[in-house]
Amino acid sequence: MNIKNLLLGKPLKNTDIKGQKLSKAWGLPLMASDAVSSVAYAGQEILLVLVPVIGLGAFHFVPWIALSIMLLLLILIVSYSQIIDHYPSGGGAYLVSKENLGKMPSLLAASSLIIDYIMTVAVSVSSASEAIVAAFPGLTPVKIWLAVAFVLLVTLGNLRGIQESARLFGTPTYIFIGCLALLIIVGFIRLLTGSLHPMVYSPNITQGLSNSMTGLSLVLILRAFASGCSALTGVEAVSNAIPNFKEPAQHNAKMILAMLGGVIIFLFGGTTLLGLKLQIIPVNGTTILSQISTMVFGNSFLFYFIQLFTAIILILAANTAYNGLPLLLYILAHDGFVPRQFSHRGTKLSFSNGIMFICIVAILLVVVFGASTHRLIPLYSVGVFISFTLSQYGMFRKWHKLRDKGWQHKMWINGFGALVTLVGVCVVMSSKFIDGAWMIAIAIPVLMLIMNYINKHYEKVGEELTLKRFHPYYEQSASHKTQAIVLMQSINKSLLKSLNYANAISDNVTVLHICRHAEHAKELQKNWADLGVPAKLEIVITPYQDIITPLDKYIKTRERALKHGDSLSVIIIKFISEHWYDAVLHTQTTYFLERVLSRHKNVSSIILPFHYNPNISPEENRRNLFGNQRN
Amino acid sequence: MNIKNLLLGKPLKNTDIKGQKLSKAWGLPLMASDAVSSVAYAGQEILLVLVPVIGLGAFHFVPWIALSIMLLLLILIVSYSQIIDHYPSGGGAYLVSKENLGKMPSLLAASSLIIDYIMTVAVSVSSASEAIVAAFPGLTPVKIWLAVAFVLLVTLGNLRGIQESARLFGTPTYIFIGCLALLIIVGFIRLLTGSLHPMVYSPNITQGLSNSMTGLSLVLILRAFASGCSALTGVEAVSNAIPNFKEPAQHNAKMILAMLGGVIIFLFGGTTLLGLKLQIIPVNGTTILSQISTMVFGNSFLFYFIQLFTAIILILAANTAYNGLPLLLYILAHDGFVPRQFSHRGTKLSFSNGIMFICIVAILLVVVFGASTHRLIPLYSVGVFISFTLSQYGMFRKWHKLRDKGWQHKMWINGFGALVTLVGVCVVMSSKFIDGAWMIAIAIPVLMLIMNYINKHYEKVGEELTLKRFHPYYEQSASHKTQAIVLMQSINKSLLKSLNYANAISDNVTVLHICRHAEHAKELQKNWADLGVPAKLEIVITPYQDIITPLDKYIKTRERALKHGDSLSVIIIKFISEHWYDAVLHTQTTYFLERVLSRHKNVSSIILPFHYNPNISPEENRRNLFGNQRN
Repeated sequence: MNIKNLLLGKPLKNTDIKGQKLSKAWGLPLMASDAVSSVAYAGQEILLVLVPVIGLGAFHFVPWIALSIMLLLLILIVSYSQIIDHYPSGGGAYLVSKENLGKMPSLLAASSLIIDYIMTVAVSVSSASEAIVAAFPGLTPVKIWLAVAFVLLVTLGNLRGIQESARLFGTPTYIFIGCLALLIIVGFIRLLTGSLHPMVYSPNITQGLSNSMTGLSLVLILRAFASGCSALTGVEAVSNAIPNFKEPAQHNAKMILAMLGGVIIFLFGGTTLLGLKLQIIPVNGTTILSQISTMVFGNSFLFYFIQLFTAIILILAANTAYNGLPLLLYILAHDGFVPRQFSHRGTKLSFSNGIMFICIVAILLVVVFGASTHRLIPLYSVGVFISFTLSQYGMFRKWHKLRDKGWQHKMWINGFGALVTLVGVCVVMSSKFIDGAWMIAIAIPVLMLIMNYINKHYEKVGEELTLKRFHPYYEQSASHKTQAIVLMQSINKSLLKSLNYANAISDNVTVLHICRHAEHAKELQKNWADLGVPAKLEIVITPYQDIITPLDKYIKTRERALKHGDSLSVIIIKFISEHWYDAVLHTQTTYFLERVLSRHKNVSSIILPFHYNPNISPEENRRNLFGNQRN
Repeated sequence: MNIKNLLLGKPLKNTDIKGQKLSKAWGLPLMASDAVSSVAYAGQEILLVLVPVIGLGAFHFVPWIALSIMLLLLILIVSYSQIIDHYPSGGGAYLVSKENLGKMPSLLAASSLIIDYIMTVAVSVSSASEAIVAAFPGLTPVKIWLAVAFVLLVTLGNLRGIQESARLFGTPTYIFIGCLALLIIVGFIRLLTGSLHPMVYSPNITQGLSNSMTGLSLVLILRAFASGCSALTGVEAVSNAIPNFKEPAQHNAKMILAMLGGVIIFLFGGTTLLGLKLQIIPVNGTTILSQISTMVFGNSFLFYFIQLFTAIILILAANTAYNGLPLLLYILAHDGFVPRQFSHRGTKLSFSNGIMFICIVAILLVVVFGASTHRLIPLYSVGVFISFTLSQYGMFRKWHKLRDKGWQHKMWINGFGALVTLVGVCVVMSSKFIDGAWMIAIAIPVLMLIMNYINKHYEKVGEELTLKRFHPYYEQSASHKTQAIVLMQSINKSLLKSLNYANAISDNVTVLHICRHAEHAKELQKNWADLGVPAKLEIVITPYQDIITPLDKYIKTRERALKHGDSLSVIIIKFISEHWYDAVLHTQTTYFLERVLSRHKNVSSIILPFHYNPNISPEENRRNLFGNQRN
């Protein structure tokens, strides 16, 4: 408990939840870290698709592709604003699909989101770890453990509560946004004042590139578009996290979404345009962003500052998942699609089980994939496109049904959005299928089936367990009696306490001893008679070392002989030492025994603590052992 | 259970213990693996001390040192034969010291032996792993895991029972002994027939060596002697393992000890003499043994065969510890110096707890020391010399006291042995102190203190707990009553079962609900009244998420209000699912609750299993839930 408090800080009261809510100022950076970090690579992704095929001709298409992405972003922001209006409890694509498309589409949205959130964590920490290893090659052997450490760091921050994680993780995001804004502004000022000139490529570089447009095709443009769409991930998170915001939560969520849109358009548009003007193409071993900042700032302090915060922001991108997924799991737990434990808040009022779930699965992914971004990326962003498509299509159906003011207008926006994102799903899925997206194609249906199974289980159990009126079986139970069985290891004083207790709860008491040697049994029987204990002693002799099986058999026989409605109570003494380290000196079989006994329907296990302290007087021990009996 | 049976084989009956005993034929190789494996390096250890100081002059001293070691071996064998005669239950140095020297010397012997046995395992598997890595450098990154795998392999073999491990591990030892015997015989025949000639060293090798005798000193000779004494480790094991042998156990143990002595003298003497005749000196990157076998057999099949079995025998040397230590721990557990669990046999009648203890500590050592023989060796063989000295000195004292036929003769043998091995302790300790033996100098007293603490604990507890006659407190307890508290999470059918049971054991029943929200509490109170349950409902409202603390507080208050001799029984429903995987869908707090409740002296925890299967009819469930009540 003390270690827990040290790591997590003081427990919070339930009423403190208001203080745990996010203001607009801290909500923005928390929601933005994923989206903003993708600016660090979205433009580059477009060029990486185009340049190998059509060389510098790529520069003709980049502006149009970037514009389309920004248009799609606007559609998504308008669409998610409407979702926030209509679904104030959060849940985004899942709730929209549930209401407008039915159960299975909603499970499709939920599993896609779960997978994509976790992939976000794995990909972000892996690329942050790769960035650090690139800077310090000496750390290569611990690359995986670096990534794991990042996951643990973000997990701990989130377990400490939303407010604290907001301050911890929000500040670097603001710094990163500020740096990029400075980069864009200074870059354009230097371009306009003529102190900065586009790259000039030497012929031996451009020769390597095809300059004909023969490779150009619709598929190529679509693939470039789909790759660039990675800039859009993270938009969904706001609509999942509404309950995390200060009141008026919906209004604040919409404001944050709008600001987020503005930030993405400014940063993505600005850096893409600047890269275009500077004619930068992807080069191995460095990024577009770092090339731009070298050109704009030279090898100055600001260049290194941006590099450092690019690494930090990649770690923080993981944080977006920690804000969105636990709330989604909470909603799913509420609807009975995931284990109910996900609906509990921890001592700091965060959804600690959801946070731990992300932590464990992300670490597994990082370890299995060796913290390699290259191997993880193909699994990424399929899920988010599926959820975009479903939420757009859900809203499309909603307007069609509602037909309130301006419905046709809204319907066509969402319809267009659904179509464009559906194309995104197909392009991303097909182009990355062999590289790993096939795993997602298996994982999503499996997850849907599991959630469906869980839901059926809860429904059946809930239905059957509901207590509507007082049951006749209870009234019949006036005659219910229990038979006590005291498990005895050897004749010692703990027997007094057990027998004491057994006599209090039952008028049918047996002492049971399981014995491995016949001679030992005889001796025990004799000692028993000598002591004159007023209780039956039953000895079961087993030829094996294992005593669980003969116990089980004995209990089975006794259970079969029970009268209607009666039960067996097995009393197990648990030796409690004054010092925790003394516990290892006494065989601890309590839980093994309890587990076996619990398999029997009419048998309860009674764990009777026997506090014994060899360091105090016999008289004191007697008082401890037998309660307040003597005053 | 099924995995356990698969790994360990079918459980054995207690009466099968006879079939688990070792014959002479299988006992010899099991006891010999450690001693025989040390032949692979004992001669070399002597040369490694001498050659750097006095060069080829070493050859003058090696025969005398080897002879002294063999003489000491003879003394040890005679001495341990006498120990076997007088201490038939095993325990060797520990029992001898306990009877003749007192408690603390016996604990010194016990801790020295425990440490040395475990060091044997760590050193053997590490050097086996190094041998394999030397042959296949590609395995270097997994060197530690190879050593860990060897430990697990030997552990598993031993858990399967003595008989099975004897066959598994005995055969390779015989093969190795056979190979070495062949090597010695063929070597001497070839020397006599003149087809084999001593090494001739080129001047540039001998120039590097000092040929003057200036470095010669008594300390040097003693250090060489102490290093060579590593050939003696493993002799102790026979006297610890007597109960493992077939009847007549003492006779068989003595026969095995004598045969072991013969084997060591033949192999150690033979290889040392052969090496001497061939004038072999230690060379980096290869061993004396492999140099001899290259010269005798050339690069033939037999050479590789010997190399292979040298690696295998190093793994098997670990096995000696698995035969001696669990029995020593059994005897110590019996005397109350180590936790009692070490006296239990497993399903295969091996001392499974002792075996697991070796496994865990050895793996820890291997991992911490990076499976490096070089770093482990300084910690090795101090312990075995201490135990030799104590057992010799103990026997010396025994003869002095007994004064039976020929006592003076026996006394002087053991006295001389004690003196020589005491010198061994001093030389080994001082020459290896800085390199790591200081850890042993700390570990041995710490272990002694722990064993002493455990002994005091058991003595006090045992004394106080003994039940000599029937206690008055028991008779007073006719008035003992228990008050039942049903822990309720929500109103559902499990409540019926708990109330049923609570009413059977007590006439004072409370239903307790711990609630986080005041509104929720009001609603529950209303539902409770509507249902008309004939029991008190108490609701504790907590502002925090944690429910354990308020429960603890509530129980404390109730406990304080108890009448003399009464107790509280807290009923906890445990939801048991038909399928194990459904268990994760229901919050499992049973053990947390039980742990907190057990801290209270007058409170017992009753775990009531609630078997619920959503896949069967409501009528069937009702029958399952409420027992045989309705027929």
